[in-house]
This record gives sequence, structure tokens and C-alpha cells, in this order.
Amino acid sequence: MDHTDQLTAYVAAFVDELAKLGVNHVVVSPGSRSTPIAMLMSEHEKIKVHLNIDERSAGFFALGMAKAKNQPVALVCTSGTAAANYFPAVVEAHHSRVPLLVITADRPHELREVGAPQAINQQYLFSHYAKWFVDTALPEAAEEAIRYIRTVAGRAVSVSAGAPKGPVHINMPLREPIVPNLSLENLWSLHERDNSYVSFNKGNPMLSSQAFAHIGQFIKDETKGLIICGDQLKGEDKQAIVELANYLQFPIIADPLSQMRSGDHAKNLVIDTYDSFLKKEGIQPLLKPEVVIRFGAMPVSKGLTLFLKAYEPKAVFVVDESNGWRDPTLRSTHMIQCNEGLFARELPKYIGSKKSSNSWSEKWIELNKQVKDSLKINLQDKWFEGSIVQELSKLLPANSALFIGNSMPIRDVDSFFFATDKPIHLFANRGANGIDGVVSSALGVSTEYEHTVLLIGDLSFYHDLNGLLAAKMHNLNLTVVLINNDGGGIFSFLPQSKEEKHFEFLFGTPTGLQFEHAAKLYEGTFSRAYTADELHCALKASFKEGGLHIIEVPTARKENVEIHREIWSDVSQVINLSEFEE
Amino acid sequence: MDHTDQLTAYVAAFVDELAKLGVNHVVVSPGSRSTPIAMLMSEHEKIKVHLNIDERSAGFFALGMAKAKNQPVALVCTSGTAAANYFPAVVEAHHSRVPLLVITADRPHELREVGAPQAINQQYLFSHYAKWFVDTALPEAAEEAIRYIRTVAGRAVSVSAGAPKGPVHINMPLREPIVPNLSLENLWSLHERDNSYVSFNKGNPMLSSQAFAHIGQFIKDETKGLIICGDQLKGEDKQAIVELANYLQFPIIADPLSQMRSGDHAKNLVIDTYDSFLKKEGIQPLLKPEVVIRFGAMPVSKGLTLFLKAYEPKAVFVVDESNGWRDPTLRSTHMIQCNEGLFARELPKYIGSKKSSNSWSEKWIELNKQVKDSLKINLQDKWFEGSIVQELSKLLPANSALFIGNSMPIRDVDSFFFATDKPIHLFANRGANGIDGVVSSALGVSTEYEHTVLLIGDLSFYHDLNGLLAAKMHNLNLTVVLINNDGGGIFSFLPQSKEEKHFEFLFGTPTGLQFEHAAKLYEGTFSRAYTADELHCALKASFKEGGLHIIEVPTARKENVEIHREIWSDVSQVINLSEFEE
Repeated sequence: MDHTDQLTAYVAAFVDELAKLGVNHVVVSPGSRSTPIAMLMSEHEKIKVHLNIDERSAGFFALGMAKAKNQPVALVCTSGTAAANYFPAVVEAHHSRVPLLVITADRPHELREVGAPQAINQQYLFSHYAKWFVDTALPEAAEEAIRYIRTVAGRAVSVSAGAPKGPVHINMPLREPIVPNLSLENLWSLHERDNSYVSFNKGNPMLSSQAFAHIGQFIKDETKGLIICGDQLKGEDKQAIVELANYLQFPIIADPLSQMRSGDHAKNLVIDTYDSFLKKEGIQPLLKPEVVIRFGAMPVSKGLTLFLKAYEPKAVFVVDESNGWRDPTLRSTHMIQCNEGLFARELPKYIGSKKSSNSWSEKWIELNKQVKDSLKINLQDKWFEGSIVQELSKLLPANSALFIGNSMPIRDVDSFFFATDKPIHLFANRGANGIDGVVSSALGVSTEYEHTVLLIGDLSFYHDLNGLLAAKMHNLNLTVVLINNDGGGIFSFLPQSKEEKHFEFLFGTPTGLQFEHAAKLYEGTFSRAYTADELHCALKASFKEGGLHIIEVPTARKENVEIHREIWSDVSQVINLSEFEE
Repeated sequence: MDHTDQLTAYVAAFVDELAKLGVNHVVVSPGSRSTPIAMLMSEHEKIKVHLNIDERSAGFFALGMAKAKNQPVALVCTSGTAAANYFPAVVEAHHSRVPLLVITADRPHELREVGAPQAINQQYLFSHYAKWFVDTALPEAAEEAIRYIRTVAGRAVSVSAGAPKGPVHINMPLREPIVPNLSLENLWSLHERDNSYVSFNKGNPMLSSQAFAHIGQFIKDETKGLIICGDQLKGEDKQAIVELANYLQFPIIADPLSQMRSGDHAKNLVIDTYDSFLKKEGIQPLLKPEVVIRFGAMPVSKGLTLFLKAYEPKAVFVVDESNGWRDPTLRSTHMIQCNEGLFARELPKYIGSKKSSNSWSEKWIELNKQVKDSLKINLQDKWFEGSIVQELSKLLPANSALFIGNSMPIRDVDSFFFATDKPIHLFANRGANGIDGVVSSALGVSTEYEHTVLLIGDLSFYHDLNGLLAAKMHNLNLTVVLINNDGGGIFSFLPQSKEEKHFEFLFGTPTGLQFEHAAKLYEGTFSRAYTADELHCALKASFKEGGLHIIEVPTARKENVEIHREIWSDVSQVINLSEFEE
């Protein structure tokens, strides 16, 4: 075999193995050094290539797709800074535990660190953010080489999909000539086995019965308990956690990203207005829990975090099969490395009998109901950024996806997106909470849903405008609800807002961008909604038509803060503390 | 002092020390954790803050500014993925040896790696790409703390500006409350000295006289020598290198980024059409050098690289004070770690007498002249991407800057930008040759020149469209000459272009973007030039008006390759090999 055939056989084996292990989607950015990987991915019948020119957007697109499809997605780029552009998405994937296979082409060894063009040192490029880094051997077609590269592919998939899921980095040096020979005999099957080379089985961390007995002993006589659910709960574990809550009669503090506020789980013990009622002066001591069991990432609500810090419970169990030590309150008492579903199913066996409804759980449910009623009345009367969330929760069709921008949108969803029977999947990039890459992440999600809505502020939208090219090039369906308050709205809630001399320049940062031009550039429709009715109509039209739609809702930063504060003040007045005393 | 005053005094000392050491420009991206750094930078009278919302663009903007001003520029961002967005610019700064001070705010220690919001592990975030990483202590106002943080500032400037210049990373944990007290007494002068805390003096690597004698011995009897100058030559070394070339009568192969093709240096021995004439069949053996002395980075021309590999000289001296081992040909015989200017000034002392013009240097000069004449005639007759470069070299005013995009523009400039007496500074990001961040780099350069033109292809322009926001927000002057061939033009020159099945999808990648909408979004003018005359008019108007102007020149990828090949074929026919035989 000549050089080209050896290169072809080797890269084909790698690509084929990925496809066999369920990596069926790859986001490719154009480049020369990556030619054989890109071409063979494109040639493989079980792989769909999504082309994305800007690697930063490509990274987030793959992240969104991997989240929505719940499977590892691959990225392919050429050598040089292309790979460095993946870094923000790699960091987010690490923290939000999303499996990505980052495949970077590289120059061969003789062209490394000698000033060759477009050659950078790609060894451990993503430092501690890649779960595994491998610099592969140069292509050969000998049986051991083919076994080796198929094994690398399998191992990469296994590592990225094992707990905690995350990004792996495969760096592949390739020597010229790099155009593969697509008519090579046995292109996909040289030295092949029938199935994948190595199948892998993942074990789940499980506590000993002694450990369970100890925890059970601790919990069984406590009525004042809370279960807190955050982002990154696995879908298959949710039912077991709901059943555990019912068994213990512990209310569920359900962060929007826990997915407990929609579908079947969204009832009974689910508490969804805590961010509002914890602001009521004097209420927190009445709600002090003795036991907390936390699943998933720390919730969005800063009020909840401060509550847990101020009213330290006797025991806080943080259950995390990956032992991520995720407790910014520094108040946890037990770090439990156990698969969350197994924990929730097993614990009741050590509790004794199921508890019945009691004054503690009734108090939380009643409080939640009162506050929600008051919030709903308030939201009807006013038109501000929070109203948009309320309208979305009404208008989103069942089985649609809502992607939520960071900074204010996720906080407004936390405050104003109430539990609903409709299954709606809520997504956000809450690993590192960046305002970057949000458009692309939503577009990645849109590949899995008929309807996807992105709720985003103007700065975050601007940050990833480039992401919209994927919508244009691949005819994706995305409705962007663009909250345009011309700047960084969140800072108006913070103490910086009192520093008049520097505030607008450093924090307000109005850009004055007219986004209808962005809509035209990327061939989407653009409309403005000034009322709930206009938002309804625009949303419905967008769902009907498909494609890219940008619905801008103009708001004012200062007024928005005032209305938020008014509402919380109104809600506080509705709560009668004496009702909730012991 | 309370927490706020201690934080204020500490950060103010840091900022003041940077200002004292000549860091007068900082590019700030908005965020909360970085509040005291951003506010105190903004408050300091010797520091100009350039606000830039997208940190990727911010990084490249700072890079361009640091290149143009030839001084360290600082970057400031908040915690989280913000910092990760700097990575492409940090990689480019490392490879192109540009001093950047990357200052990232971080959460305090108790909020690290515990799932706190917007907290990522920022330790050694840029791995081997930062020359120095320091995680600073938490703020205090004690004398030792102030001495410490002023020393950190001084050391960071010293390291970034020492050879090889490059990026340093200062990670600064800050605890809430983070709004500084701008009315603190002695805000800038607590525990201060009169000047900077520590001044530093940089030593330059210098060879021993024995080493020079050895090199002189080697060179003095050789007539067939070449001096090759690439990017990253320091301005102050150029004259000495020109004088060395004259002393030895060695032609200077002048890469466009060597700055030897414009201004006073652009005469005598400067060879600027080698990329064209090295393509002539049979010419290379006639031009084989025995000695090569290289300064700066490896030139752009692939033809030159292949020539040096094929016709291995007896001696290749790579002179680099930073010992970067920059020789992708793997044909160098001597790695010389010596300051380039010192080397060029010292070597003649070991040669004996100045050489006089000889058949070797005359041959190169004559060949260069013939080829240039032929190229000029060809360029007059045809209208293609290369013609744009010719027109620019004619039309650019003296003392203006031309920023050149990667991929095809830099290659066309290499081929068709001929030496001119007018001082025109040519810039490009040739550390890693990325198509990313080019718009922002050019805008960074524009802060130092009255007229800056950016020559860029459509994919690269799209990649950093976000960069244009800085032009709008800060009223910068930039004329973009946008070569729009709707896709990746360079691939049409490569073997991939024969792979019809996958070519347009994976390599051609037409986006169909109508950039007039981008011009409207960022409030620039937009025009199209189909002829040299139209380009003249549009350029002149842009220089007169100032602000952001986008002049699109539509071209066709396939036709462009054909015209390039035609021209080189015509040029080859002009060369009469027998003239250049010994």
C-alpha cells in the first residue's frame, strides 16, 4: 500500500469505529490538514456531517446537539487556532458534563515547533478540561495500527460517555499528501471485526448497605426535609427521585433545568416559586429544613443559596455519582458518591414506612400556591421581561424545547416559569454560565426538536451572531425571542448600578445594534413584539413557517428592575407569616 | 480599613503600577467579578480603556494594538468562559511574539471547584501558551501586600516584553463586595514609591568573538549567499540587516511582513518576486545558494520553503535571539541565538572587506526585475484577486497600514505586492496563520494609524464579524477590502479540488452571505468594486470620510485559480534560462 492508501485505511477505521459506537453526528469546520477525517466522515453512511465554519460556534453547536440527543457528538477541525476556538465550548462541556469528541488534525512530528505554517503545539491544548488527551500515531495500515486506531476511537467514546460525561481530545497528526483514496478496496473493513472492536460496560457507583442504613437512620425521623434538584439530572433518574420525595414527604425544590417543572413530574411536591417567596422578610426562619438531599448541579437561584447558607440544616446530603463536590454553600455534611437513580430507589428500604402528608410539606405547598397565584395576577397586569417567560410557558407546544440564555433570561425563567403538565424541555448552558455560544447551542438542540425557542438577551445574542449561519446553511428551525434592552441588563440589579461615573460605559454597554440587519444577513424573518398578543402571533407564525425567526421584544433596563422589585414587593404582601408559623 | 477599602487599595496599586510601566491601553470586556479592575483602570488618568464585548474579538483587538504600538497591552475580563474566549488570540500572541497581559478576575478560593456559578478552574488556563501564570493573593492593604501586587504587575510587564515577547496570564481572585471605593484617600499612592517599584533592564543574547570568527570564516569566501527576512523582525534591526546584505552582496529575500518591501529599505538587493520566478521549470538549480542567513519567522512562500529543502545549501544560519528553532525545512546547519541587530552589526568585522557587486547578486536582481516587469504587464491586463493587491500598493498613502488576511490574501500580497519607497506597514497574523480574529486585529492596528486597510476574504471576514462592533462603538477608521469569492478560495488551488463529490460541501463552503447587511448592522458604508477604477474611487472616498467602510470585490474561485496559473505561465515564458546560467 502506498502512503495515500495507508492513510485512508487508518482514518477510515477510526471513523468507522466511531460510527459503530453511535457517534452519528459530527460537526466539521473546513480546513486542509483535516481533509481525510472530514472526507471519510462525509463518506460514511452512518454519519451525518454538520458543516460549521466558525469553530467557536461549531463547538457550541455540537454541545447543544449532544445535550439534546444525549449521545457523544464529534467535532473535527484543522490544525492551528481553529482548535483553540473550541475552548469555550470544551470548558462548558466539562462543567455541564456533556460528551464531546474533539478531533483535531495536526501537522506531523517533523513540522512541530519549528515555525511551520499553521502549526501550534496541540498537546494537551485544553489542559485540565479534556477528560482524556491522546496524540495518535501517524497513519499506517498494518493490522496492529488498525487495531490501535479502532481502540482509540472506542476508548474515546467510552471515556467521554462515562461519569462524569465530558469532552475528550484526539489529536491526529497527518502527513501530506492528505487526500484519501475513497475507492480503496475494503475501505471500511480492513482487519475488521463484525461489530465494534471493544464493547464497554459502565459500572454505577453504589453505596454499601451499611452506608444506606446510616443515612436512613438519620433521615427516617425527620419531617423537615427538602429535596433539591438542579441541572444535569439524568432523565432516567427523575421518576425515582419524585418517588423518594413522595415516600419521605419532602418538598422538591425544582430548578427549571431539573426538568421537574414540566411533564408528569410537575405536580404534588414540586415547589417552583421559592426564588420569589424566600425574598419575604421573616419567612426564612419558618422554612428552615433539618435535612436536605441534593441531586444535580446547584440551582440557579441565588436566594436559595443564601437561604441554605444562613439556615444551616443538620444534614445536607449531596448525591453525585461523579463526586464533583458541588457545594458552593460549604454547608454540606455528607458527600454521597452514588448513582442518583440507585440512591433514590434504594434509600426507602432503610427508612421504614412511607410517610404521610404532614404540616411541613403542606406548608410549603400552600405557600407555593399562594405565591404563584399572586405572581400570575401580577404578571397579567404588567409587561416586562418576566412576562415574556410567562407567555412562553403558555404558548410553547408540548414536546418543544426552550433554550434559555444566561444572565437575566435564566433568572426570569427561574422566577416565572411555573410547573406545567406539558412536556417542555428546558436547556441552558449552566456549566460555566457564559453568555457565549448560546445561539449555536440552541441550534444544536434544534436538530432534535420540531420546535425550539431561544430566549436570549441582546448582548448574548450579539456574542454568537455567527452561530446563525448554521440556521441559514442547514435550514434549521429556531425561533429567537430576543429581549433587547440594549446592554447588560443584569448589572442594573447589582451594586455597580450606583456608580454613575463608570456604569454605562463599563456595565450598561449599550451597543445600539439594529438586529433586523442580522436577520437579513442570515435570511431569517424579523419582527418586534410590544405586547403579549404580538408575541403570541409572532411565535405561532414562526412555528407554522419553520426556519429562522427573530422576534425582538424591546425592554428598558431600569424600568425592568423596578417592575421586578414591585412584583416581589406585591408578592411579599400577600404572604401572611402567621399562617406559616408552627 | 474595611474589606472594600483593602480591595480598592490593592487593585489600585496593581493598576497604577501597570500604568507607570507603560501599559496605557487596556481592552475590557464587561463582567461583574472584574468590577474593581475595570473601574480602577477606567479611573486611572494614564490608562485608556477600550471596551469590547466579545472576548475573542477583544483578545485580537489587543493583539493588533500591541503589534502596532509595539508595547504590552492588557486585557481584562470576568471569571468563566470569558477567559477561554481569549485563547485563540493568546495562541497567536505566543507564536507571533506579541506582549499581552491577560488579566482574568476569578472567584475566591472558597468558591472554586464547588459548582459555584460562573466559576471554572482558571489555573494555567492557557497551558503552555502563557509565558508566565500567576494566581494572585486575595486583596489586602498591608504594606507587604501592596509591595507584592505592584511587583506582580512589574514582573508581568517585564516577562511579556522580554524575548520572546508573548502573553502572560494574571488570575486575580476577588471576594464580594467588589465595588471599589473611588474616593479612598491616597487611592493611587498607598505605600508608593516615586516611580515604578522595580525597573528592569533587558539583556540581549550576544555571541562570543570565537563564535563570530567561526561564522565569518565560513561566510567570507562565499559569494553565493542569500539573506532571508521574515515576519517579526524588530524595526530597529532592519537597517543593520540591510547593511549586512550590502556588505556581503547577498540578495535579500524579503517576505512582505519583513517590512523590507516598503520605505527606505526597499531597494538595492531586495528580491520581491521569488514566489513567482521559483515556479519556472529548470530555474532552481541555477539559483542554488551555498549560504543562507535567515532573520525572523519563516516566510510565507511555500515555493521558497520547497526550494530551500530541495537545494540544500552548505550552511543555513537561523538567527533568533529567542532560540525558537524556527526551521520547518529541517535544513538549517547553525542555530544562532543572538540578538539580530547585534549579529548583523558585528558579523562584518569578521568578514574582512566589503564585497563588491558580483554575478551572483546581479543575476538575482536582473531576474527579479524581468519578472516584476512581466508581472506588472500581466496585472494591468487582468482583473482578479491579485490585481487588488497591485492597486492597493499604488493607492495606499504613505504611513498607512495594510492588514492582510490569511489564506489567499497574504499569498497574493507575497506574489504581487512589490517593493515601494512609500512607508507602508504590512501586518498579518502569521504566528498561527488563523483566519480568526483578523477584523479585530486590524481594528487594533487602526488605533495607531490614520489610514488602515484590511484585505480579507469572505470566510475570514465572517469569522470575526463581531469585531466590527468596536469600529461602531469607538468610531475607528478602517477600510475593509473584502474579496468575496463566496467560500474558501485557497482550496481551489489544492488537490482536494479534484474530489468533486465532497469538494463544495467540505471545502468550497459557499455561505451566500450578503455582507451589505453586516455593513448596516455595524453602521459602515458598503460598496462594490468591479474594476480597478471603482476600487480607486471607493478607497479614496473611504480615506476622506473616515469611519468604517466595506468595499466588496466579487471574484470567482475557479477563474481566480486559472488567472493565477496563466500569469505564472506567462512569467515563466519571459525568463530565458540561458541568461542565468553560470
